[in-house]
Order: sequence, then C-alpha cells, then structure tokens
Amino acid sequence: MTAPTTRNRRVRLAKRPDGMPDDGVWDIDDADVADIEDGQLLVRVDYVSMDPAMRGWLDDKRSYLPPVAVGDVMRAIGVGEVVASRSDGFAEGDHVTGAFGVQQYAVATPASLTRIDLSMAPLPVFLSVLGSTGLTAYFGLLDIGQPEPGDTVVVSAAAGAVGSVAGQIAKIIGCRAVGIAGGPEKCRLVVEEFGFDAAIDYRSEDVAQRLRELCPERIDVYFDNVGGDILDAALTRLDRHARVVLCGAISQYNQGRMRGPSNYMSLLVDRARMEGFLVLDYADRYAEARGRLAAWRDQGRLRSREQVLEGIDMFPEALRMLLRGDNSGKLIVAVR
Amino acid sequence: MTAPTTRNRRVRLAKRPDGMPDDGVWDIDDADVADIEDGQLLVRVDYVSMDPAMRGWLDDKRSYLPPVAVGDVMRAIGVGEVVASRSDGFAEGDHVTGAFGVQQYAVATPASLTRIDLSMAPLPVFLSVLGSTGLTAYFGLLDIGQPEPGDTVVVSAAAGAVGSVAGQIAKIIGCRAVGIAGGPEKCRLVVEEFGFDAAIDYRSEDVAQRLRELCPERIDVYFDNVGGDILDAALTRLDRHARVVLCGAISQYNQGRMRGPSNYMSLLVDRARMEGFLVLDYADRYAEARGRLAAWRDQGRLRSREQVLEGIDMFPEALRMLLRGDNSGKLIVAVR
Repeated sequence: MTAPTTRNRRVRLAKRPDGMPDDGVWDIDDADVADIEDGQLLVRVDYVSMDPAMRGWLDDKRSYLPPVAVGDVMRAIGVGEVVASRSDGFAEGDHVTGAFGVQQYAVATPASLTRIDLSMAPLPVFLSVLGSTGLTAYFGLLDIGQPEPGDTVVVSAAAGAVGSVAGQIAKIIGCRAVGIAGGPEKCRLVVEEFGFDAAIDYRSEDVAQRLRELCPERIDVYFDNVGGDILDAALTRLDRHARVVLCGAISQYNQGRMRGPSNYMSLLVDRARMEGFLVLDYADRYAEARGRLAAWRDQGRLRSREQVLEGIDMFPEALRMLLRGDNSGKLIVAVR
Repeated sequence: MTAPTTRNRRVRLAKRPDGMPDDGVWDIDDADVADIEDGQLLVRVDYVSMDPAMRGWLDDKRSYLPPVAVGDVMRAIGVGEVVASRSDGFAEGDHVTGAFGVQQYAVATPASLTRIDLSMAPLPVFLSVLGSTGLTAYFGLLDIGQPEPGDTVVVSAAAGAVGSVAGQIAKIIGCRAVGIAGGPEKCRLVVEEFGFDAAIDYRSEDVAQRLRELCPERIDVYFDNVGGDILDAALTRLDRHARVVLCGAISQYNQGRMRGPSNYMSLLVDRARMEGFLVLDYADRYAEARGRLAAWRDQGRLRSREQVLEGIDMFPEALRMLLRGDNSGKLIVAVR
C-alpha cells in the first residue's frame, strides 16, 4: 500500500531553548509521508495537545521520558483518523489517539493507539477532559490527593486545562474547591464556569492571606500545577496530614535553576506529604476513568473549554502562550 | 507536703535568637522549688535531651508546638526520679521521663509521665535509643519510609543520634544503608560502629557523585535530617516510588529564610513522595517500639553512643554544639 500523495508538514526541534522557546528553536518543513510496513498504520493527525510538560521534554536532562532529540519531530499527543492500515485491530476510518508528534501524518503500531468513540464527545475533547489532561486531573486528585467529602481542595492554575478538571472533580465528590488563577477573567471562569467555591487572583491578591480567609479549616489537598511562590503560600496553610499533589511547576519551567519550596518543612509540622505522579502509570485504568469523566460530562457536571489554534505553524506560538498562561482552557493546535 | 529545701536551677529564654543562639539568649538562675498540689508530683531531673528541634521552638512562628515564651523555662525532654508525690500511680523513687524542661526540678502530673524500667538500660539511654531519639528513627524509618528488605536506604546526619539509629534499623530489617556525615571521624563511626554499608563525607566529597557510585540501584528511602544541598543531591538519585522521610533540616535552622529543595520535581519524575512526621503522634505505640528497640540493643544489634555534658550551665554551649554538628552521638546534659 502506498501512502497518500500529500506531504507531511511537521515541527522538528532545531536546537535546545534557553528560557522561553523562540521560533528559532523549531524547524518546520514538509516531508514525504512515510510508507507503512506490515503491522503498521498511517494516522492523519487532526489535533495535537499542548501540554506544559512539553517544555521539560526540550531540556537535555533526566526525566520520566528521554528528551526530544535535536532533529526529531516534537513529541505531542494527538487525535486523528487511520487513513491506511497494514495491521489487525484498526481499519481506515477509525479514530484514534496516541503520541503522534507535531506533524500531519504519523506511522503507528496498534499497541501505541487507543480507539476513540466519537459518540462520547467531539474529537478535540479527547485531548482535554477525556484525554491525558482529564486523566491527569482524575488520577492526581483522586489517587494521590485522596480527598474525602468535606475536604478543602485548593488548585493552582485553576483556569487551566488540568486545574479546571481537578477542581470540578473535587466538587463532584463533595469537597470545597478554591482555585488560584491569574487575572480577573480567569478567576471569573473558575467560579462561574467551573463551579469552584472561590478564586484567588495571584496577580493582584496576597495568596497566603487569601488562603487564610478562604480556607478557615486549612487545606486538605493542594493540587499544584505551578510551583514557586504559590506553592510556598499553600504550604503555609496545610491541614494536618494534608496531601500536596505535584502535577507540574509551570512557573519554573523557563527558569535556569528551579527554586524549591522554602516552606517545605510545613510537611513536617503538619505531618503532610508531597507526592508526584505521572498519568502514564495509570494506563490500565484509563478506560474506567474515561468512562466516569464522560458520564460527568454528559450530566453537565464537568465542563471543558478547548481553545483551538488553526494550523500546524501555530505550534511555536501556542507553546509560548501556554507557558505564559495566556490561553483560556485546553490549548489545542489543529494540525490537519 | 513541702518541697525539698534545695533550689531549682533552671534555664529560661531571655530573648529570641537571631541565627545561632548565643549566651545572651538565656537566663540561668536559681528559683525556689515549687510546692506540689494534690494530683501532682515533683521530679528531680537528672538528664535532659538535646534535640535539633529545640532551635525551632525558639522562633516565634507556627509549628507543631507553640514557641517557648520569653521568660519561660526552656522546653526539653528529660529523665529523672520522683522525689515527692501527691498523686496515684507514681511513688517516690520511681524513674520517669517527660517534658520537664531545662531545670533541676519539675512539677508534673501522672498523665505527662512515662515510667522507666532501669532493668532495660541505664537512665541516659532513655533519652537516646529508648527515648524520643530512637522512637523518631523507628517510626520515621518504618512507618513513613516503609523500607523493604533489599531496599537502599540513605540517611543524612548518619552519625547523629537519630540518623545512627535509623541506619541501624535499616540494616536490621535487611536493607542496604548508606550514611552521609561530616568529616572522616564521623564517617568511620557510621561504618565501623553503626554498621552502615558505606559513608559519604559531605565536607570533602561530592555527595551527588558518591550517591551515584554507592547507590547503583538508586535510593528507595531517603531519611533526611539536614535539608539544603544534601537533600537536593539525594533527590536526584531517587528510585521510582521512593520515599523521602522529612525528619529535620538542621542545615537550615539558623538561616533567616529556609531554602527549599531545588530538585523537588524529582518527586514527580520518580513518582516519589516526601513526607513529614512527628514522633508525638505515635504515643500509643511507644511501648511496642521501645520493646523492639530494647531487644535489638540487648542483642548487640543496635548500638548507641551518648555524649553527656556535666552541669546545667552547659546547656547553651550544648545547643550550639548540636547545631554545629560538633557532638558525637546523642548529646545529653546532666542537669542534676
């Protein structure tokens, strides 16, 4: 079988960034669409997910995945459609998700793919609430945070893709949810659209002071996406045996050297723990979680916002928007 | 009943320290021994335990216990003998331990006392291996660290009172133990006297490099007493699902502002957790733990060193020795 005669536009890493990744970090070109071999499929990639973790993949240091090599297609999770198949299990026309990279066509194997049922939700939603974003919030909050009804759950980057889902799940299971976000518009979204009980604007308010006011019974679960000063403020307000869920540290990703939480000894004073996790470790429970998330979404209890930028050439700016916090909702690039 | 006609020499907090507590921080004087009322006992305090946590009690900030008030007797755990009793449960001549403060006579109630059986060990040992020092190592390592046989356990301040016990317990339950200590003499003690598999001298060696060499299968449990650069080095070498036990941060106690662990995001990369604890929370299991510790000590598997400074007036210098790391083994002041 021959690959379609179109070209494959792709975004490759040209050099490692220093701080915020500028356009020179990327090499965008058109290549031939690869031929597939027995056991492989060709996927037309429609959308790719923009994730803060991408910034970490650009640095040449030890992490949970190897760094993206200079010259390689940028790593990204995508959704798309099988357009050619020489393998069992998937046929042309099937919708799938996988780590396709920032490109328009990807060669894949069945083991690396998950089938998408479009009767559950539109395609981009499988990159937000029903994708790794929603799954990250789900397992981070429920498995690492272990909230109980009545607990106070505080979420940073609460208007963001993961944070907004974490806070909504907290509400669904009967917790009080307080979100931290930057600017009045995001704070409005946090309360009015995502249903948090309260929001703190870290750009104009004293976060530690507001946490004292808004969490009179202290914090049982702090779901951290940002690190830095906000993590430090939350640490001063932990309840005894609190759980700090380390999901990300977006405030630090463009810093040369990470700054650790000065108030980490609150973990001792409050007999609390801080724990990291990776959604990849929960693959055997994705289906179960996706089912619950979809049900909540169908019931109108779990809202998602997707902000879709059109065109693969938007990728470099999309990443900067994400790292600056200028996006609103789950940021997605339509690469098709 | 009248109190003995002796005087009670005591160490009171005269003012809060800035950095290392100098002599001017303390007011040492002689007071009348207080009369006891019904339900109270008078304890002659023989020894008090020197603990790094004391430094934290001097600062006027939120912690697991209120700060020592200016003018109050310095808080300390001691061992001694009941010399007068107007309560049930304890009689003159009983040996007891409790939070007596740095003074020669303390008024106590039965609920605040634990009886000591001198057939188990000499009196000072109830401030070291069989006291809160040993109990801290026991619960911190076993309950928070949850080591399994074959695990690699790394302990900082490994020649110190708590660290030396933590490492020995790790060995007893079948782990590999690597200690970090300052200077060749302490490192020799760690290996030769306390039986760790290896020691790293943080004053002359590159801790991160040595951890790479000595922990080829990475670190399963890191028992931290020091914070700072050593904590950061250990974080870079965690195994997946590792446990970092926060027992103390002695390197930071005299700093104006604590420095947090820059490498804390290793907790995410390695799906690891960092957790604090307080031995006070395990009071209902002290007897069980003390029994095991005493048995290990009797079998010669758990060694303790006590360094006893004679005279209550030694307290200010003893605290500085402890904070500088100039002691060798469990530091105790004989106040009698």
